Amino acid sequence: MTHHTKSFHIAFQPLGLRARFPEGQSILECARNAGVDLVSVCGGNGTCGKCKVQIVSGDVSEPTQRETDVLTESGINKGYRMACQTFAKSDLVINIPAESLSALQRLQVEGLEIPLSPDPLVQSYHLELSAPSLSDLRGDDIRVMDGLGKQHGIPCHTMDEAVLRSISSTLRTNDWRVSAFVREQEVISLGAVDGPSLGVAIDLGTTKVAGYLVDLQTGKTLAAKGVMNPQIAYGEDVIARIVHARKSPEDASMLQAKVVESLNRLSHDLCREVTCKQENIQEMVIVGNTAMHHLLLNLPVGQLAKAPYVPAVSGAMDVKARDLGFLTSKGAYVHVLPNIAAFVGADHVAMLEGCHAWDAKGPLLAIDIGTNTEISLAVDGHITSVSCASGPAFEGAHISHGMRASSGAIDHFQIIDGSVTYHTIQGTKPTGICGSGIFDILAQLFLNNIVDQSGRIIQDHPRVQDKQNIREFIIVDKHETANGSNISITQGDVRELQLAKAAIQTGINVLLKDRGLAHEDVSEVVVAGAFGNYLDLSSVIAIGMFPNLTLSRFRQVGNAAGMGAKIALISGERRQTIQKLTRKIRYIELADFPGFNDIYMKAISLGHNQMGYSDKIQ
Amino acid sequence: MTHHTKSFHIAFQPLGLRARFPEGQSILECARNAGVDLVSVCGGNGTCGKCKVQIVSGDVSEPTQRETDVLTESGINKGYRMACQTFAKSDLVINIPAESLSALQRLQVEGLEIPLSPDPLVQSYHLELSAPSLSDLRGDDIRVMDGLGKQHGIPCHTMDEAVLRSISSTLRTNDWRVSAFVREQEVISLGAVDGPSLGVAIDLGTTKVAGYLVDLQTGKTLAAKGVMNPQIAYGEDVIARIVHARKSPEDASMLQAKVVESLNRLSHDLCREVTCKQENIQEMVIVGNTAMHHLLLNLPVGQLAKAPYVPAVSGAMDVKARDLGFLTSKGAYVHVLPNIAAFVGADHVAMLEGCHAWDAKGPLLAIDIGTNTEISLAVDGHITSVSCASGPAFEGAHISHGMRASSGAIDHFQIIDGSVTYHTIQGTKPTGICGSGIFDILAQLFLNNIVDQSGRIIQDHPRVQDKQNIREFIIVDKHETANGSNISITQGDVRELQLAKAAIQTGINVLLKDRGLAHEDVSEVVVAGAFGNYLDLSSVIAIGMFPNLTLSRFRQVGNAAGMGAKIALISGERRQTIQKLTRKIRYIELADFPGFNDIYMKAISLGHNQMGYSDKIQ
Repeated sequence: MTHHTKSFHIAFQPLGLRARFPEGQSILECARNAGVDLVSVCGGNGTCGKCKVQIVSGDVSEPTQRETDVLTESGINKGYRMACQTFAKSDLVINIPAESLSALQRLQVEGLEIPLSPDPLVQSYHLELSAPSLSDLRGDDIRVMDGLGKQHGIPCHTMDEAVLRSISSTLRTNDWRVSAFVREQEVISLGAVDGPSLGVAIDLGTTKVAGYLVDLQTGKTLAAKGVMNPQIAYGEDVIARIVHARKSPEDASMLQAKVVESLNRLSHDLCREVTCKQENIQEMVIVGNTAMHHLLLNLPVGQLAKAPYVPAVSGAMDVKARDLGFLTSKGAYVHVLPNIAAFVGADHVAMLEGCHAWDAKGPLLAIDIGTNTEISLAVDGHITSVSCASGPAFEGAHISHGMRASSGAIDHFQIIDGSVTYHTIQGTKPTGICGSGIFDILAQLFLNNIVDQSGRIIQDHPRVQDKQNIREFIIVDKHETANGSNISITQGDVRELQLAKAAIQTGINVLLKDRGLAHEDVSEVVVAGAFGNYLDLSSVIAIGMFPNLTLSRFRQVGNAAGMGAKIALISGERRQTIQKLTRKIRYIELADFPGFNDIYMKAISLGHNQMGYSDKIQ
Repeated sequence: MTHHTKSFHIAFQPLGLRARFPEGQSILECARNAGVDLVSVCGGNGTCGKCKVQIVSGDVSEPTQRETDVLTESGINKGYRMACQTFAKSDLVINIPAESLSALQRLQVEGLEIPLSPDPLVQSYHLELSAPSLSDLRGDDIRVMDGLGKQHGIPCHTMDEAVLRSISSTLRTNDWRVSAFVREQEVISLGAVDGPSLGVAIDLGTTKVAGYLVDLQTGKTLAAKGVMNPQIAYGEDVIARIVHARKSPEDASMLQAKVVESLNRLSHDLCREVTCKQENIQEMVIVGNTAMHHLLLNLPVGQLAKAPYVPAVSGAMDVKARDLGFLTSKGAYVHVLPNIAAFVGADHVAMLEGCHAWDAKGPLLAIDIGTNTEISLAVDGHITSVSCASGPAFEGAHISHGMRASSGAIDHFQIIDGSVTYHTIQGTKPTGICGSGIFDILAQLFLNNIVDQSGRIIQDHPRVQDKQNIREFIIVDKHETANGSNISITQGDVRELQLAKAAIQTGINVLLKDRGLAHEDVSEVVVAGAFGNYLDLSSVIAIGMFPNLTLSRFRQVGNAAGMGAKIALISGERRQTIQKLTRKIRYIELADFPGFNDIYMKAISLGHNQMGYSDKIQ
């Protein structure tokens, strides 16, 4: 910015964030630079309409064609604009509707203690060394290695370069009494005696990130915390991120740096909670879907988004933490679990480990619901996996009044004796509907015959309206809502939900058919992930998305991927086993499965009994 | 440099280098920045007087006390100044005397072919892979690893991160036909089929650098080249370099970067000679003394220069070439051989390997002469080593008319029937005396009784003069020299040479005494290094520096360290053996050896018979 560029002062309300921005940046860019987490599903391309803001005062550019396509005329008259399409022409005050903010959502970080005894790759050893003298002129490196051999019987082959670069001062400052941290015959860290041996496990989701600080010796979880993935500002789904990363190598590096910066802050906060330092982190395990995995490691992502969709890297990787920009002990490694396929990533592997899928006795279905839903079927230790393009409905996107699971979202809905009841997150006035609420609504409308098996909204209900040729069911009247507009579910929304439901149901049915199993053969259905945890199982069983089994066969396990990451962190033996077993997982490409189209078309209908899957298919 | 800083234009003659420099830089700094390799033994501290230049025109700062101490009044009147003490006050023309330039010296790079069959760590494999399809969705990494396993029976565990970052485009660009370069179960490079597999071996001396380009498959040396170590501008000996590196971490990094930049240029030139590319370099082996080793790897050097003098790193290291800044294939490693002690480095280890010291049948002495002289005694595969502070006389420093072995240096000298004959490098008018010439002179004066056993110059010879209380022997009259001054050797020079001779002789005698051997027990004396190659053995035997053995027991082997580096480059088996055997080398600290003072004091006398070492010492 030179001194001649105009700039404007912009205040973002109700957050109270203010800053000055040069002319020519879109409001979306300004918001990002100010640290405002505006929703942007399409990554700023002007197609999703989710980055809606209200211009309270000041002059802005004229509405673009895209805005008049997406926004209503009355909305534009009230100052509503798409932030990615709008440019300041004067100082501005901008109001950000709650539904446009991706901030402060429910994050799933709690988790049980790790159910196995620790066997970490990194072990620490106390060393008492003699200082060099004329009769003992061994190099500092050899002195430490000899000490490990003689005092602990540990044969060491190498020392990390960064450790070697500071070895002389470390030994002398600590008067030749140090702790050496050894990982697979490599000294990765050397420091004052009695420093703790910490590990960090990260579940890096497209939207949410969960971090766990673990004592590597005891296996105890010392602290846990959830944050948002900061890449969300550059597109909400993996495809938008991949598109952003492919713009230029600099954009890819920027995405990588953003997430590392955020993970460093996360591990800083975790360490502070237990008054430890990041330099005591001796190992990290990170799991994420294949796209998050590739973006984190700055691997090529083009082939992830182009048929036949293959990962650049499927195998597990060990990378020096510093090479990725992480703040840890000098020579610490980051271990990333293997991926299964382009759309079944290391987080699903971790989830399988976290819910002990390999050890399951009867047939087990493991489902991780999201924009992309990964499902695996485990039978006697043999696992097959599929990936279903279930779409963003679960995150409230592509739904007229959809929103994230944050304050004011309708998360539960029922029709009792014909009258409507609902619940919002934090009990505030409703501003929209989040994923669990949307499926409750669909199930309730279906069960009350307001929506038929084909998904049509039937007209003979007082809450059903036809407005500008669009049929909708009014959930909440405008007098009760936070923004004074009706909250409804439209015929289009129902179609969107049918596609999501069909995708997941198809995945389940293909996995079962491939193995010659019927719904009732399934002993256990594990539903993981934040969304899966809040979902009303009865609703998704009612519409036919999940098999019609007794609820006791279902288990909502929360962040099983985080648990899997923790297990890999504290157990070298399990880590090896996971690698070996993951290579044996058979991935089924749905579109390639015989009879896929039939199975999918049938699954679009609501309810059960349309499939004939109560009987075993041979 | 702001716009308000004055600057001056300086021309360096006879080189014809011109540039503009800001006020406040010493002439030495200006010269370095202009790329003029001015000699500076003391590293710019104003004590060595070697950076002498002549101000031809323009104004400069007044002479400092240090200059009036070191330079003669008539010299200062003629415009001679010390570059490190002098600052421009106007545009300047500066003449650089030949003896102040460290440029263009004899560099020892030739060498025999490597006498063993190649067994390199890096092997290349041709792969024909199938493209991914709906029925084969393996990740790119797994596809390559599977190919190595199935097509070549090579189990691969990991792939280099940088290779993974480009794997997708490499495979697709080359239509799934590639060469994979594998090193210890790691894929370190992936590229077009039929790329050569090149290695580079470097002997990184304090002054000179020798580089060899080797075909890893055939073991053939494809090209060889010598260059100067660019760090020389920051101090000529290791101590001056260590002092410079310890000024600040930035200075240490700068020294590291300078040498890497120069080695990159060297390997570029080597590759160009055989029309190959640096990206085909799959492995490097670098050897150097412990200080050069530590500076190259940016390891701490403080403890190298402070009693009890220990290396930070003695063990062999494998470092990713890119982490040090080298231009090679993506995942190539640099291997550095182990060090023996703070003053017996990896270059001496390479020299021992290069002259097959471990396989020697009779007792073998291996001597690498320089400012620091390393000597080893090998008996039946058992090696003991010492380090002798022989001083810079061999490089012509600390000698009144000493200079490096470059054009105009007297490199051989004889007194035949009382009259003096000499030879200069390139046959030009003499400007000074280089190392081999200095020892010829001392030997000839001693053999002709002009210098007695105690080192005193005896007065009764027409060429002996007393000038300002300093006795000297005129080697060349001023009418015959390039600069119009006498070239002489002074009483002080003889004392300096006696110290150098005593240091080396003491090293040899301590090694022999330690083993209970006498001079005549030695079967072979290997003299390595550039200086060792040009030395007249008769001269150094005559003064007593080397044992009085028949010349047939001596072998002047040139750059044996370079040969050792080449062997380590092409043989994984030898590399392992070297590591193992080096750990067993016993280093003797001379000052700690019983009777050291006696042995040293006796060795100051010239000639043999003063030691009683013709008889076996029990």
